[in-house]
Amino acid sequence: MAFLLSLDVGTTSVKAGLFQPDGRCLASDLQEYRLISNSADEAELEPLTYWQAACHTIRSVLEQSQVNPSAVVGLSVSSQGETTIVLDKNGQPLRKALVWLDNRAVNQAESLKQKLEPEVYAHTGIPDIVPTWTACKVLWIKENEPETFEKIDKILLVQDYLIYQMTGNFVTDGSISCTTLFYDIIQHGWWPKALSAAGITVDQLATLLQPGSVAGTLTAKAASELGLTPQTRVVCGGMDQSVGAIGAGNIGTGIVSETTGAALAIQASIEDPMIDKTCRTPVYEHSVPGEYLFVPVCPTAGMTYKWFKDQFGEAETETAEKEGKNVYDLLNQLAQEVPAGSDGLLLLPHLMGAFSPESNPDARGVFCGFTLHHTRGHFVRAIQEGVAFMLRRNLELIEKSGVKISEVRSTGGGSRGTLWNQIKADVCNRPLVLLENEDTGMVGDAILAGVACGVFQSIAEGVHSMVRIKHSIQPGKDVAVYERAYQRYCDLDKTLFDYFKRNYSKA
Amino acid sequence: MAFLLSLDVGTTSVKAGLFQPDGRCLASDLQEYRLISNSADEAELEPLTYWQAACHTIRSVLEQSQVNPSAVVGLSVSSQGETTIVLDKNGQPLRKALVWLDNRAVNQAESLKQKLEPEVYAHTGIPDIVPTWTACKVLWIKENEPETFEKIDKILLVQDYLIYQMTGNFVTDGSISCTTLFYDIIQHGWWPKALSAAGITVDQLATLLQPGSVAGTLTAKAASELGLTPQTRVVCGGMDQSVGAIGAGNIGTGIVSETTGAALAIQASIEDPMIDKTCRTPVYEHSVPGEYLFVPVCPTAGMTYKWFKDQFGEAETETAEKEGKNVYDLLNQLAQEVPAGSDGLLLLPHLMGAFSPESNPDARGVFCGFTLHHTRGHFVRAIQEGVAFMLRRNLELIEKSGVKISEVRSTGGGSRGTLWNQIKADVCNRPLVLLENEDTGMVGDAILAGVACGVFQSIAEGVHSMVRIKHSIQPGKDVAVYERAYQRYCDLDKTLFDYFKRNYSKA
Repeated sequence: MAFLLSLDVGTTSVKAGLFQPDGRCLASDLQEYRLISNSADEAELEPLTYWQAACHTIRSVLEQSQVNPSAVVGLSVSSQGETTIVLDKNGQPLRKALVWLDNRAVNQAESLKQKLEPEVYAHTGIPDIVPTWTACKVLWIKENEPETFEKIDKILLVQDYLIYQMTGNFVTDGSISCTTLFYDIIQHGWWPKALSAAGITVDQLATLLQPGSVAGTLTAKAASELGLTPQTRVVCGGMDQSVGAIGAGNIGTGIVSETTGAALAIQASIEDPMIDKTCRTPVYEHSVPGEYLFVPVCPTAGMTYKWFKDQFGEAETETAEKEGKNVYDLLNQLAQEVPAGSDGLLLLPHLMGAFSPESNPDARGVFCGFTLHHTRGHFVRAIQEGVAFMLRRNLELIEKSGVKISEVRSTGGGSRGTLWNQIKADVCNRPLVLLENEDTGMVGDAILAGVACGVFQSIAEGVHSMVRIKHSIQPGKDVAVYERAYQRYCDLDKTLFDYFKRNYSKA
Repeated sequence: MAFLLSLDVGTTSVKAGLFQPDGRCLASDLQEYRLISNSADEAELEPLTYWQAACHTIRSVLEQSQVNPSAVVGLSVSSQGETTIVLDKNGQPLRKALVWLDNRAVNQAESLKQKLEPEVYAHTGIPDIVPTWTACKVLWIKENEPETFEKIDKILLVQDYLIYQMTGNFVTDGSISCTTLFYDIIQHGWWPKALSAAGITVDQLATLLQPGSVAGTLTAKAASELGLTPQTRVVCGGMDQSVGAIGAGNIGTGIVSETTGAALAIQASIEDPMIDKTCRTPVYEHSVPGEYLFVPVCPTAGMTYKWFKDQFGEAETETAEKEGKNVYDLLNQLAQEVPAGSDGLLLLPHLMGAFSPESNPDARGVFCGFTLHHTRGHFVRAIQEGVAFMLRRNLELIEKSGVKISEVRSTGGGSRGTLWNQIKADVCNRPLVLLENEDTGMVGDAILAGVACGVFQSIAEGVHSMVRIKHSIQPGKDVAVYERAYQRYCDLDKTLFDYFKRNYSKA
């Protein structure tokens, strides 16, 4: 049998999974690393750390599964976007990776805005230039570390760097590159004006392949470090969100997937990348060739819940430790006892600012509407409801662009919560589809590896073979209550929009 | 030596204190009772419960102090306002007391509004007719318990009822009666139009004396039940807030006292009762004859802190119990570690609606402006700051009416918090004066008893003799930070005013 390997390189951990083509996961492993940060706006990591973690997890899944390495036909690599690694002409890192979270390039974002707007969205699908994007980070190096900048031979993303370690080839794809600001999602090529604005040339970037292409085979050295054979083909997976969408079966218009992890990320497959005439919704090049994704993101979803647990769930944390329970199960119980709508208590979950649908970096978290009668359980429920309201707002934004949503698929840690899922179904008044394997990034990589190695004829066939629906949650009796609560949420969000700008502006 | 007895009958407890004329408190006692409530808007109590608790506490202080009962020259009685007790022609209660909190008389408040507005403020100093006021409760009995209403011989407040039990006399005063809606604070007499609107006659009300007058001496029966002699003179103290103002030395214009208990109550002595041309600030007849009090009230001050402690302070509550500490001290420590202004987190403390300065029954509690960086200590500090902002708004309201505030005196349980006091001084940018005996109601009653019995020539002399300043807290380095935070608080309050009306209207 042919086996398929998945590697997904996230912000704080790397995951590997080994799959059979029927979707069965034989083994998986996760290795964490800690970002290096000397101040609130810095986030870096040694590039080698990514590679070492990748080797560790892949060796681990091979060991766990006892599969013959020569039977591993393909290894698909996907990663976080934007994180920037610069190499010298010997292929050695010139400095630590600037992780996407790194916020130092504020002035560079401003200067690129001056040079490139108002053309940016039409070329890149990026609604706003912020320090996150690779081009800003490159310009930051140019202006702050000119000696390093002078020596840059190649500018790589994390996926590209790992593929280079594996194959010796400098290749990338439009899916992983579409948030660099260098990539033109309409032309499927580099955007010369952006390169020149950042002061780089096209030979400093990797060669563009179609997402899902074979990048090469393993070098002998890499094969030995990974515990594989040089026959294994390495595949460009693409952006983690796009690959996750494939793993959720989200490969044609109509299906929307939502991931409630630390952030709330929503992916809607679309054909026309310029369908949002307001230019507000980020558009990615999908890892399905020829398709695009709407990807509205709200940065603080599960993160809000975790924050609340850390600050206000001391008692449950202790009980959970003592009794070997999950602390969130205990908190969910409190929320379960509270009526739908939390007796009027609302959360605006903008703890890191509001992103989609209305971007407002000055927005903050709000609990509004409590009385002496409100309990801690009300606050827990209000958190889950607030995230569900945010989901609905974004679904409405997608539909306003003309995309008809036939189905919402839920993935990520948040989809493990029975109550939270029901709240989402009720708030959105739509069925919510849950998947057998909620780690859709792993599944998506395996599908792409399978297609690239001829195990599947197409991505659709791979999805059919590997993605399994667990069940579907129907909207229930609380739809009407939530309709009113949602209107109230929108009212509060709108009412406070300018207040936030007046009072919390960082400018 | 002559000794002075104080009796203050509150909502959930009665307090007694025995004083020397030099202000020394020889003994005090508190007896609690539990209100009877069959639904959220009901609050009742057997009238006899007040009397039994009064007897119990007075006997207790006499026992503790071992003072010869015949040396107790005066006993001043003050109480909560509004609570309504109806007696038949034999002086027996016809039903349970309708406690001021009882909210059933909604329709009656509306109907009295129709009949009496817009004249109410000019006669009574009451800005708005709500079910709290005695007249509404009497009308409720008339419309809902007509057989009881038919038998009403006397309508008494709690102070009046206890004085009747003590002396056999039906007497009251303008201080305790000024929130009945029946009393005209300008004429110092009953307001015929209000009596007729409620369907009662003047002989059903007690005889009006000046606050601080001798109501009579103890009957033999009462003396025996109280453990006193029939020589003790019983004095009409008046409304608890007014008597407390006297006990804080707040007897002339310029001094403002604030009590941070469950509610935030502010008392400013004024001479002209109609000084607030906006007719928004409640005005009481002071227990100092000829004076008035502005009494803006915010119902949820300490109550918000207690609510937070109950819902979010489980860990501290446990630690406090284990280690024999005060739970609020532990929470205050958390707040102490947080910078002034709570890093932008604000509380709107309207957990029971907003009262003064802008009445908005639909307002609710809000925590606004948190990020992932905010801790529980931020929330604790934001509560104390929110109450301080509310205090400042009300001080500004008072000054807008033309009253110059020379000094703010802090009393009540909230004044025990060092941090909270400093926050108040900083937010208001004024010195905050603390008193030796923060139980100002007890001290005020003792002063009134002393004046009525000739121990003091005047209230001013009594204050001079009995009220002692502990120390004064100066505004510190955080004044500028709080100036900005206060502007933000006012902005938020204003921004959400109509939102509350749109979304939480009870109508």
